[in-house]
Amino acid sequence: MNIQGKHYQSIWEEAGEVYIIDQRKLPHQLVIESLESWEEAATAIRDMYVRGAPLIGATAAYGLYLAAKAAPEDAQEYIERAARFLGETRPTAVDLFFALQGSLKVIAQASGKAAKTAAALQYAKDFAQTSADHCHAIGKHGLELIRAIAKNKPGEPVNILTHCNAGWLACIDYGTATAPIYLAHDAGIPVHVWVDETRPRNQGSKLTAYELLNHGVPHTVITDNTGGHLMQHGMVDMVIVGSDRTTRQGDVANKIGTYLKALAAHDNGVPFYVALPYSSFDWTIRDGLQEIPIEERDAAEVKYIEGLSDGAIHNVLITPEGSPAKNYGFDVTPARLVSGLITERGICAASEAALLDLYPEHR
Amino acid sequence: MNIQGKHYQSIWEEAGEVYIIDQRKLPHQLVIESLESWEEAATAIRDMYVRGAPLIGATAAYGLYLAAKAAPEDAQEYIERAARFLGETRPTAVDLFFALQGSLKVIAQASGKAAKTAAALQYAKDFAQTSADHCHAIGKHGLELIRAIAKNKPGEPVNILTHCNAGWLACIDYGTATAPIYLAHDAGIPVHVWVDETRPRNQGSKLTAYELLNHGVPHTVITDNTGGHLMQHGMVDMVIVGSDRTTRQGDVANKIGTYLKALAAHDNGVPFYVALPYSSFDWTIRDGLQEIPIEERDAAEVKYIEGLSDGAIHNVLITPEGSPAKNYGFDVTPARLVSGLITERGICAASEAALLDLYPEHR
Repeated sequence: MNIQGKHYQSIWEEAGEVYIIDQRKLPHQLVIESLESWEEAATAIRDMYVRGAPLIGATAAYGLYLAAKAAPEDAQEYIERAARFLGETRPTAVDLFFALQGSLKVIAQASGKAAKTAAALQYAKDFAQTSADHCHAIGKHGLELIRAIAKNKPGEPVNILTHCNAGWLACIDYGTATAPIYLAHDAGIPVHVWVDETRPRNQGSKLTAYELLNHGVPHTVITDNTGGHLMQHGMVDMVIVGSDRTTRQGDVANKIGTYLKALAAHDNGVPFYVALPYSSFDWTIRDGLQEIPIEERDAAEVKYIEGLSDGAIHNVLITPEGSPAKNYGFDVTPARLVSGLITERGICAASEAALLDLYPEHR
Repeated sequence: MNIQGKHYQSIWEEAGEVYIIDQRKLPHQLVIESLESWEEAATAIRDMYVRGAPLIGATAAYGLYLAAKAAPEDAQEYIERAARFLGETRPTAVDLFFALQGSLKVIAQASGKAAKTAAALQYAKDFAQTSADHCHAIGKHGLELIRAIAKNKPGEPVNILTHCNAGWLACIDYGTATAPIYLAHDAGIPVHVWVDETRPRNQGSKLTAYELLNHGVPHTVITDNTGGHLMQHGMVDMVIVGSDRTTRQGDVANKIGTYLKALAAHDNGVPFYVALPYSSFDWTIRDGLQEIPIEERDAAEVKYIEGLSDGAIHNVLITPEGSPAKNYGFDVTPARLVSGLITERGICAASEAALLDLYPEHR
């Protein structure tokens, strides 16, 4: 999507070089970095220069391209070691493993360094383009939900709440949760987005707000505490969030706090949709609460927050120095709280039966 | 309670002067201010040097003492004008009106400036002492709930989640939600407190954590997004929050986000208690959702956050400069989600019938 009138994707290759936007600097600075090695790709994932399931997958795939480029002649083992290392950067993201496995397979089938490198690059580009295509398809399906709500409130905007950033910055283009919003906005349907700031890393107030502002979509930033109140007072028409990992029965692991919004939506009869591509499904598990490991991140992300003051970025302490903090990255929203899943193949209920109707190859 | 070994209350009078702790500077600096006029008392309430229902009430009462002291001889009208002004500083806090009405009554009954001033001071001191006594009584009742949980998990701490600061800083001493925690800790029952940071003003991570740290109570700061996940995994034994205003049927207005925690507690069978003194009840209304006006505060509280960096306090921007924000101060938790109300008279269900059994004078 657009930043100041120019079209960007969140990762791209140009003349053999791989580029990303350093999302840690947003919304205050637009910094583009080139990834010089697979180790830098791993750092970009681990330290969250890039985040969001599809972009993590694409970055890992580009990381294996960089590993193939750097490997000694025909050293499949070197590339596999890089893949293991890349696989340990973010344990919750299923896209990461999907991309690494897919890439390793095409690399193994190629012989010779040049062929392996070319295969890895093609895989990464295809992975990224497929993600953009899937996001666009998600957008087209989700757009119809928004259109239906808009018909019932002519002249008024459709109020959509979203949590975290499942936007184009998290994907490659369009985003997952934001794709229906962008397509609705571009189709002339009036939409207004409630943007959960999404502590501790504030991907909502820093990234989703940045995206929407730059694309001209009306929005309002709120604290994560606010959505329940808005829903109690009829100020939210629907919730759309993304997913880092969704089980076979439709349990959704997404950014910590998603579950609380799902409870509020359920309590107030507000439709709660999860937008996600094929690659975010984990068909090997059913019970998300029992089976999805929840990443615990550095307590410093809770104790400190970064922002702009006097033109410079400061990392400020917002707790007593001596108080401990805990930082769980995700929570699991049980399928019973999900109104529907918006996938690139269409919209379905969050149940194993409905999912297998859309994805019969996983029966 | 204690700060670095010294006992403090959150407002006090000494030799005719009124002192408060400027809570906006916590947890990084302990700054004590004297209130020189009723206008300064109003500023202290409006600009949140002081916050929390009982302390707001006490500060308003001390404000009328300062008004009586400054008034021309026998100018009841001057004092009433001050009361109206003080009454407009925080529309959601019922304690504010309670304290102002009570004080105005005793002032009206006294004649002559000296007598009015003395009556106003005595009222303010009694109001503050009654609040401390009520908090202690709340603590004794709530302690029994904690003791009962502790019996079922010998050797393990009782994990209590709280939202915002309903601690001694919000009251005069002990606090409301924290009183049972302090009394349990002091009685040797192992407790551990999950402290919601409570955006946007972070009263949890700034004040509750500061209190607990200084009193030696084990605690962990978490983002407001985290409590649902903890409850899903059995890591919370009970929730205790305070209340800014509770209706006749037990609907609870408290800091924005309380409702989301109540939903999560309900969904996971975790007891959800609200601790509150007599003065936080509003017997004139039933339906909290329909009848309690929700204060909307400055959007800058969402867009900026204050913290410590390099020894200085910085106010940093955490959204794109051009993105709008909304800042609702409170939400309403319906009585159906409340396991019980812990009052100075005892614990009761959140229902009109149970409340009237405890407070028969409001039948």
